[in-house]
Amino acid sequence: MSLDSMKKTKIDPFGATLIEDYERLYKEFGIQPFKHLLPKTPNPLAAMRRGLIFGHRNFERILNAMSEHEEFAVMSGIKPTGEFHLGTLMTAREVIYFQQQGATAFYCVADIEAYEDNNIPFEKSEKIAVGNVADLLALGFDPKKGYIYRQSKEERVKNLAIIFSRGVTLATMKAIYGERHMGLYLSALIQAGDILLPQLKDFGGPKPTVVPVGVDQDPHLRLTRDIAFKFRKKYNFIPPSSMYHKLIKALDGSPKMSKRSPMGYFTLEEKPKIIAKKISNAFTGGCPTAEEQRRLGANPDICPIYDLCLFHFYEKDEDLVTLYNEECREGKILCGECKNRLIEIVTNFVTNHQQKRSEYINQAREILGIKKY
Amino acid sequence: MSLDSMKKTKIDPFGATLIEDYERLYKEFGIQPFKHLLPKTPNPLAAMRRGLIFGHRNFERILNAMSEHEEFAVMSGIKPTGEFHLGTLMTAREVIYFQQQGATAFYCVADIEAYEDNNIPFEKSEKIAVGNVADLLALGFDPKKGYIYRQSKEERVKNLAIIFSRGVTLATMKAIYGERHMGLYLSALIQAGDILLPQLKDFGGPKPTVVPVGVDQDPHLRLTRDIAFKFRKKYNFIPPSSMYHKLIKALDGSPKMSKRSPMGYFTLEEKPKIIAKKISNAFTGGCPTAEEQRRLGANPDICPIYDLCLFHFYEKDEDLVTLYNEECREGKILCGECKNRLIEIVTNFVTNHQQKRSEYINQAREILGIKKY
Repeated sequence: MSLDSMKKTKIDPFGATLIEDYERLYKEFGIQPFKHLLPKTPNPLAAMRRGLIFGHRNFERILNAMSEHEEFAVMSGIKPTGEFHLGTLMTAREVIYFQQQGATAFYCVADIEAYEDNNIPFEKSEKIAVGNVADLLALGFDPKKGYIYRQSKEERVKNLAIIFSRGVTLATMKAIYGERHMGLYLSALIQAGDILLPQLKDFGGPKPTVVPVGVDQDPHLRLTRDIAFKFRKKYNFIPPSSMYHKLIKALDGSPKMSKRSPMGYFTLEEKPKIIAKKISNAFTGGCPTAEEQRRLGANPDICPIYDLCLFHFYEKDEDLVTLYNEECREGKILCGECKNRLIEIVTNFVTNHQQKRSEYINQAREILGIKKY
Repeated sequence: MSLDSMKKTKIDPFGATLIEDYERLYKEFGIQPFKHLLPKTPNPLAAMRRGLIFGHRNFERILNAMSEHEEFAVMSGIKPTGEFHLGTLMTAREVIYFQQQGATAFYCVADIEAYEDNNIPFEKSEKIAVGNVADLLALGFDPKKGYIYRQSKEERVKNLAIIFSRGVTLATMKAIYGERHMGLYLSALIQAGDILLPQLKDFGGPKPTVVPVGVDQDPHLRLTRDIAFKFRKKYNFIPPSSMYHKLIKALDGSPKMSKRSPMGYFTLEEKPKIIAKKISNAFTGGCPTAEEQRRLGANPDICPIYDLCLFHFYEKDEDLVTLYNEECREGKILCGECKNRLIEIVTNFVTNHQQKRSEYINQAREILGIKKY
């Protein structure tokens, strides 16, 4: 769905809505472009440099906290409905980045949302959560400088949702989310609790907090900023800052990865051979014949293989520029070669990651307070 | 508001809606008349014998559990917004009655509702709750055969609300409660959690449960019965039974006591002298002059003094019949005399109750886990 047709339906964080027209987000929803802040951002992530992190709200406040060495927090999380995929990988990298820049890092396992939105029972999501948290640790999250928790076990979050609910009219909920069942509304209030949790006394009181998320999650941020304002007297909340990343294309070329098309994405837990197969079979921006492609070049802008390189797997910006221009657009390499190169990188990454992850399973279980079955 | 004008606005448990036309409840909302079950009810309360408890849902199931000596529960509670008054006294007596008939008694201090509906902060309601629970104990509630808790501290109730929310559409909420802020909807879901709490495994699993309430609370029962049905597979819930009492008239003759008119009601904690004053000043069904009243008699049907005798303070039914007919309607006594007689009874009751209550304050604090300030 393009943003044109979304004018009335709003951005929907629960459904499979798609954001093609980022410019509209600036104009209509008050999200600010990130690029002006890039020069002031220390040790920027590849995703920042490459424009994948394209928008923010009040990120200046975080830059300020970083440069003044003031206390600040980063808050994000995962909905434990399945294994880590490339979207959750992006968020995890952002959280870890801010942790390394000095933030206290809050990582929420949104099992209440997994139940309300996807009907995943808590008994099931707790098993998934163990793997998710092991992934996060394997990626470099330092649990000594952060707090990982499950929504369903964090009473402070539930209590905040109860307190906030009094300040939210039905009209507000409908304006932000449309007509939904009570569980989704409650889940949204609980997410407001997650986002403001770092500012409770138990965690040292009010502080700038940045929430890196996919842009489809912005409605939760709007709700939470509204709530932070309404309850400012009681809690002295600082409105949360946020940072938005683009969504990576699916392997079949469609604009968003979805669990409904398993050939369109892969998780970090899949067998490298299967991932290789999926990449091999992926749609590309190439031409029908090798001859044509050598002559005309290919189109990286519509290519999910290029997206994989851009979002996650090409470390050096120079390599990416070369790939984009000479190699791809000027037809120097064919899609098969490009895919094989990527397969090697992905296989190395995934094999290495899976090894590390397996070593973190017990610690993940401990952090979540989940016994071995 | 009469039920005629309520056709569209529904029965409103949060507002000050009034139920004058009980017959309509039978027809429109499916509440059953209680009187047919009175002969089967063991040791009926005065309020049952006198038709003050006028309706029920599925009370047969409770009668059956009583006669078969099967496990059953009674569940009700108080919104800790102020001291015990004559409405909460009625509910407390019903709860204690069922406890004495063998029920496990659950008594909820609805501090979340007090916050959502009346904006009473939790720090304030916890102080009020101590007094409320001391009242309950002084009235004869046996804590060894029951469970008294605060909503805000009972995680199982909050977790049930979270689970139930997925099964409730916005349309259902609006049909039952109208357009309200999110806090009132959440509070309704939490009350469904309260009502079904006795059926959790922790408390021995599914069992018939009777909920004695003022008829204005029926919407919560309808919502909860709907939820019990929707989640029957997961929990094996037995739909809760309920029992409805009429609302006592205010001392100024208006149809419902309200905190907004402090001269129209009294609490069990007021000074007996002040209560006496309020009774002295109350509206009655009497005539303008003594001469007229001796000749024409008075009208007990519109008289709050008669209501006090009927609901709470005349123990013997015969005395009440005499008061209603010979003494009042036939003009044998004047209102002043009737009031003085009542003042003596109320003063004795209240003095005695306040003495007992003060002895239960520490135990109440212990039960609620609230430290002395």
